[in-house]
Amino acid sequence: MNWEKIWEEIGQNAKKAARVLAKASETEKNHALQMMADALVDNTSRILEANQKDLDLGVEKGLPRALLDRLMLNEGRIKDMAHGLTALKSLTDPVGEVTGMWKRPNGLMIGKKRVPLGVIGIIYEARPNVTADAAGLCLKTGNAVVLRGGSEAFNSNQVITDIISKAVGDAGLPAESVQSINARDRAAVDMMLKMNRYLDVLIPRGGAGLIQNVINNATVPVIQTGLGNCHTYIDSDADLEMAVNIAVNAKTHRPGVCNAMETLLIHQEIAPQVLPLLHKKLEELGVELRGCQKTCCIINGVKQAVETDWPTEYLDLILAVKVVESLDAAIEHINCYGTMHSEAIVTNNYENAQKFLEEIDAAAVYVNASTRFTDGFQFGYGAEIGISTQKLHARGPMGLEALTTIKYIIYGNGQIRK
Amino acid sequence: MNWEKIWEEIGQNAKKAARVLAKASETEKNHALQMMADALVDNTSRILEANQKDLDLGVEKGLPRALLDRLMLNEGRIKDMAHGLTALKSLTDPVGEVTGMWKRPNGLMIGKKRVPLGVIGIIYEARPNVTADAAGLCLKTGNAVVLRGGSEAFNSNQVITDIISKAVGDAGLPAESVQSINARDRAAVDMMLKMNRYLDVLIPRGGAGLIQNVINNATVPVIQTGLGNCHTYIDSDADLEMAVNIAVNAKTHRPGVCNAMETLLIHQEIAPQVLPLLHKKLEELGVELRGCQKTCCIINGVKQAVETDWPTEYLDLILAVKVVESLDAAIEHINCYGTMHSEAIVTNNYENAQKFLEEIDAAAVYVNASTRFTDGFQFGYGAEIGISTQKLHARGPMGLEALTTIKYIIYGNGQIRK
Repeated sequence: MNWEKIWEEIGQNAKKAARVLAKASETEKNHALQMMADALVDNTSRILEANQKDLDLGVEKGLPRALLDRLMLNEGRIKDMAHGLTALKSLTDPVGEVTGMWKRPNGLMIGKKRVPLGVIGIIYEARPNVTADAAGLCLKTGNAVVLRGGSEAFNSNQVITDIISKAVGDAGLPAESVQSINARDRAAVDMMLKMNRYLDVLIPRGGAGLIQNVINNATVPVIQTGLGNCHTYIDSDADLEMAVNIAVNAKTHRPGVCNAMETLLIHQEIAPQVLPLLHKKLEELGVELRGCQKTCCIINGVKQAVETDWPTEYLDLILAVKVVESLDAAIEHINCYGTMHSEAIVTNNYENAQKFLEEIDAAAVYVNASTRFTDGFQFGYGAEIGISTQKLHARGPMGLEALTTIKYIIYGNGQIRK
Repeated sequence: MNWEKIWEEIGQNAKKAARVLAKASETEKNHALQMMADALVDNTSRILEANQKDLDLGVEKGLPRALLDRLMLNEGRIKDMAHGLTALKSLTDPVGEVTGMWKRPNGLMIGKKRVPLGVIGIIYEARPNVTADAAGLCLKTGNAVVLRGGSEAFNSNQVITDIISKAVGDAGLPAESVQSINARDRAAVDMMLKMNRYLDVLIPRGGAGLIQNVINNATVPVIQTGLGNCHTYIDSDADLEMAVNIAVNAKTHRPGVCNAMETLLIHQEIAPQVLPLLHKKLEELGVELRGCQKTCCIINGVKQAVETDWPTEYLDLILAVKVVESLDAAIEHINCYGTMHSEAIVTNNYENAQKFLEEIDAAAVYVNASTRFTDGFQFGYGAEIGISTQKLHARGPMGLEALTTIKYIIYGNGQIRK
């Protein structure tokens, strides 16, 4: 395949579409979202047929059950995708807002206006619902999008992109607003990572391997998302019941996601009271503990943690536990091993709460709440394109605004620089 | 040299310093800025001695005159550096501001707090004043900085960093807040570009080659700065005198900088009136014109422009001129050849002004003013670390706020996810 030529065409089409989208009104974009949603539901059988092909190939290839489940679509999941698109209609379009305007001594009026990023590249893995989700978020914010889904979902993604793209065209906006590179060829992705002429940003969504590959090889600016080695620290002053509830929730509510707790830190003064209670609850819920030496002294039969446990994101019913001497030791541990995603303290001590909020270097820092709240919907953004764990541009849950940038608009009346 | 080991040490020191700086009060940081400024002035002879070594080596190597001038320090320039540092004291520290806080239905209070980026890497060329400038901006915003200056300024940068770093230490903040990698070895930079463990962002300041090398090879997030192929478009409805003044200013006020105009676009209806006037003025000021065919028909003896003129940033007393059929053609040309830096329209037509502001995809878009105003000081930011020509994180002139990020601080009372 001549990927250079294919990319050149995709890139030029995306740029053209982006220029039209940037001028589209909220009414036009909402109309397109509704058309996209309707088209998905209307084409349910076509989507399911393509999805079945992917599933059959997946079974043939011996894909793990969990992956096959993520890959699998049914009528309900297609309705959910459509609902996700129509839900975007009610969110306020951030594009066009002038967030500030000031007058300079020479009379120039300088304003900061929110505008779309332009063309967004999204690289993701086996969940075909991301195709509709990402397309909707980009369209609502006036961005063209180029999608590159996992090869396991090849047929599903192809059909979903075709349907959505046609619906956008039928709604009177450029069909090329949503394009996909749906190839099994790795060279296609490698080239995507370096398409600085056409892509304004790349957002990888998926596991550590995918994200690391994008970071290592992209020359297009990247928004790093998703890896979460999250901690909860139970302070000496914590309410026992609250501490247990929060820890159990952060670990077990949905262990496979990035805002789940992976390591629990407990102040040594409260550890003898908390640990037995917590151990009992977690054991009932099937959680395997890996404890530091002090933990193992307090509760019998716990597996001993090794150094590699502290930086590990298990994404599973496993919890590393460490008893610490002080709040400072907890902060030190988190700033050393954390991925700057979500960190929580449970305490009734005012000063300790403030110190934790101040000194922990993470996207979301909690006092007395579960880390599971780090999520665009839970934050009230009404949508989420991912959770940024880098510091540039966007940090934490990214809603619509994260898909925009600003430009300065300057009104003069003949000013020249003296 | 074992760069890996050296970098490991620099990186760890920077991280440690950054954690202390993040907590430093504005009073402490302003005190350090004053100490830095005083130390530079007090050590004038030491700096000049080191600078003389660089100049001697430069002459020996046959460096061009312009470069030698940028490299050269004298008492006045050292005073300017010191003044730049003390001027930062009066600017408001953006760190610590909570830009918004809201309550969720479950009672969680979610706030967005402005915090330093952490550790900033700055890669620049032969101007040793950037050393003090960048160090001051980073310190004011609570960031540790690792500086990598051009090898031509090796001795000057070394001495300036030593002086500043010691002054920061004397002021009671970590001396490692300001470090430099001052090696002639290219391997040192190559490694810097991939120090994701320690650097939160890289800001290259310099020519196209330097910036492209950083973009192509860095895995650390980069803020792209500075390249400016800027245009001025004179609309059919323009005021003649204003149009000539703005064009002359944008081209000749300081032709070697990124916000200078490189191509002039003129509506065909007004070209026969504007061009002769403009040609006369520009000729007097020593500007060479390179015109499209229509331009060459209107004024005799103008050199004909070729395709490579349109994307070129001359940074010199050269101006490409193109007569266009319409506003749309001007917008098309700018969005095709521009570097999304600064673009201006001169017009008295309301609709055309609004259309230009809306459709030009650049960091700064002007109506009836010179592009030369794209500058942190001119915008009223009181400082500037560079002008971003990318869309992520910061766009246009970057003041103090561009050196910060946010973190979410969340106050709960036992909330768990249902």
